[in-house]
Amino acid sequence: MKAVGVIVEHNPFHNGHFYHLQQSKKQTGANVIIAVMSGYFLQRGEPALVSKWARAEMALRGGADIVIELPYAFSTQKAEIFAHGAVSILNNLFVDELCFGSEDGDIDSFKHTIKFLDEHTILYNEKIRTFIKQGHSYPKAVSLAFHTLNPNPDVLDLSQPNNILGFHYLKAIKEQKSSMKAAAIKRIHAGYHDKESTHESIASATSIRKRLLEDQSLHSIYQYVPESTYHILNSYFKEYKQFQHWEHYFSYLKYKLLTGTNEEFKEIYEVEEGIENRMIEIVKASHTFYDFMEKLKTKRYTWTRLQRICTHILTNAKKEDMQFALETKKAPYLRLLGMSQNGQQYLNKIKKEIDLPLISTVAKLKNPLLSLDQKASHTYTLGLPSPLQTKQLYTEYSTPPIRLDTPH
Amino acid sequence: MKAVGVIVEHNPFHNGHFYHLQQSKKQTGANVIIAVMSGYFLQRGEPALVSKWARAEMALRGGADIVIELPYAFSTQKAEIFAHGAVSILNNLFVDELCFGSEDGDIDSFKHTIKFLDEHTILYNEKIRTFIKQGHSYPKAVSLAFHTLNPNPDVLDLSQPNNILGFHYLKAIKEQKSSMKAAAIKRIHAGYHDKESTHESIASATSIRKRLLEDQSLHSIYQYVPESTYHILNSYFKEYKQFQHWEHYFSYLKYKLLTGTNEEFKEIYEVEEGIENRMIEIVKASHTFYDFMEKLKTKRYTWTRLQRICTHILTNAKKEDMQFALETKKAPYLRLLGMSQNGQQYLNKIKKEIDLPLISTVAKLKNPLLSLDQKASHTYTLGLPSPLQTKQLYTEYSTPPIRLDTPH
Repeated sequence: MKAVGVIVEHNPFHNGHFYHLQQSKKQTGANVIIAVMSGYFLQRGEPALVSKWARAEMALRGGADIVIELPYAFSTQKAEIFAHGAVSILNNLFVDELCFGSEDGDIDSFKHTIKFLDEHTILYNEKIRTFIKQGHSYPKAVSLAFHTLNPNPDVLDLSQPNNILGFHYLKAIKEQKSSMKAAAIKRIHAGYHDKESTHESIASATSIRKRLLEDQSLHSIYQYVPESTYHILNSYFKEYKQFQHWEHYFSYLKYKLLTGTNEEFKEIYEVEEGIENRMIEIVKASHTFYDFMEKLKTKRYTWTRLQRICTHILTNAKKEDMQFALETKKAPYLRLLGMSQNGQQYLNKIKKEIDLPLISTVAKLKNPLLSLDQKASHTYTLGLPSPLQTKQLYTEYSTPPIRLDTPH
Repeated sequence: MKAVGVIVEHNPFHNGHFYHLQQSKKQTGANVIIAVMSGYFLQRGEPALVSKWARAEMALRGGADIVIELPYAFSTQKAEIFAHGAVSILNNLFVDELCFGSEDGDIDSFKHTIKFLDEHTILYNEKIRTFIKQGHSYPKAVSLAFHTLNPNPDVLDLSQPNNILGFHYLKAIKEQKSSMKAAAIKRIHAGYHDKESTHESIASATSIRKRLLEDQSLHSIYQYVPESTYHILNSYFKEYKQFQHWEHYFSYLKYKLLTGTNEEFKEIYEVEEGIENRMIEIVKASHTFYDFMEKLKTKRYTWTRLQRICTHILTNAKKEDMQFALETKKAPYLRLLGMSQNGQQYLNKIKKEIDLPLISTVAKLKNPLLSLDQKASHTYTLGLPSPLQTKQLYTEYSTPPIRLDTPH
């Protein structure tokens, strides 16, 4: 059996993701798809639209064979750490090849870019520092530094979010001395940040979320998602009456900011330079999360960076807790969210050779990163309508991995 | 000018309180009434029904001349510390006599009780310890110890809540070497804990709160409160659409319990013996605060004790913050909430002789206990309907003391 790996958020799973999974098998000749998926809080510092169980099921029904949760300590990080955590999981599961979607479909341009930057490291870092000093955000400084180095046309446009991720996947594979290969799949018909959809069956997750949150109905997204996703979202919405977004957590964030101490905020991951004092002053006058963020953001503190900080304050994720992720850059366990029959066969085959604990219920392992996942899950739950919280809270402890017994 | 002091919560101000103020003047011949009033969180570990500003106004319209806030560090404590804080404030304001309501109207029986217990301290404390070891709560053990000592009939029934408070007022006066006199005013027609009212114009604050919270209307309490209270409650309710109670804060408590760390809980005042772990387990399965408390309470951990612990967890009040209150047993500032013309004249007269800072806006003083008051105020605000939070939040900083320019 040959396994291909994908790194996903599936927020929610849509036709573009379906295409990505199909292409991953086709391009690599693999017969098992392993998906590493963010849990309740995502890379841009946002709560997921629906629970990780619902999203794992979407992935399985859409073609994945094994879904492993990317721990919070990696899922809510900038591209470099995010990539390392995800790649380390795939590597542990003996994945032959990683397939990632990107704006640029040519894997050679990723390799050229890595080579080019390796040869220009000192100059490149100097330029980034210069642009940051000029008041640019880190991502903007990276992009500017890159362009002023004037690389040849084979080299990637690193201002594109999926190119950045892909670039870091390849770097992580290299740095982890993994034998995993990598292939880029060109994204079709939708840029990552596109808020409007232009194609009849493909729309970005961003635009689908926008429709779901604005309409609070599924009608307008039907054409952009597989039938299975549609049904899962539909029954989720019937039960929970809402899709999750930051506004559901704003009162907790406000509470935390208004009752925490400076000593406590200093311990929170990514809280630096006294940003907490600005947040406290601004939150007092803010009625909504959106309003708060609009007042808070600056050139230097981008929306995404601030959302991640807000997420860490909300979940009480401390510098100390995240230290392990930063130091080792490797996930310390494999939390199985779901599998197909095919996936189960693959796991049975490799089980004895896996170095990390493969866990199906959280009670089986004590680990600081797993505690962080539980805290993230608790926090996520508290944004749901109050009568449903207890049930959802226990899913974190009692839900066994989803088993898809029917073939896709 | 001669000042009489009262120690109050006025949650809300009712006809019994009005009678108390009248009698205080009458019995002592004083012409100024100074009220020390709990702020947003009360002695039994509950949020106040309405804001401290509304309650201060009720007191002024009901006959008080000066209203000073009892800092959180004293207002949410058991009788001994509560009494010390309040007495220290009255003492600083040159109050001649303290008048307190009690089940027993005879001041001599308070004096006899103190004398009796002074003479039997060792035996008394031994008995308390024995009863606690047998599994009784502290208040119950005190009452049992007292009864088994079989004191003479002049001695107080210390199982009555207002007798306990009065007893501690007198002890505090003695221990603070104050020259303040004290008088007991017999409470009429309503026990502290009475949930039903039996008299046509007097009902306990407990029974009035019960009516207000159950009916969410003022109709049923009209006969038990002065006109002025009725109007203040009425316009408060028109604006805020609710009276505050613990259920409005339960989601925050739950959030705090589910995201806090053991290290953090250990720092919280009154959190001991691992009670936090029981709280965390129970809160997961609790839909309401009432439900939570019913499951949590034991013989040893009474409802009131647990409510205070919940309050300290909610407001993030730390052992370290409360240390000052425990050590000095004296309030470090006088926060003026309101005054009548008469009260203002009195303050002008004594102003130069007051040892403590008399503050009318919080920005004027940096003090850890005042920060705690602000945190309590922030926390209280977050239980209000979200569009009204910002306005209420700023009242803590911008509201000047209420001035009652018309005579009562």
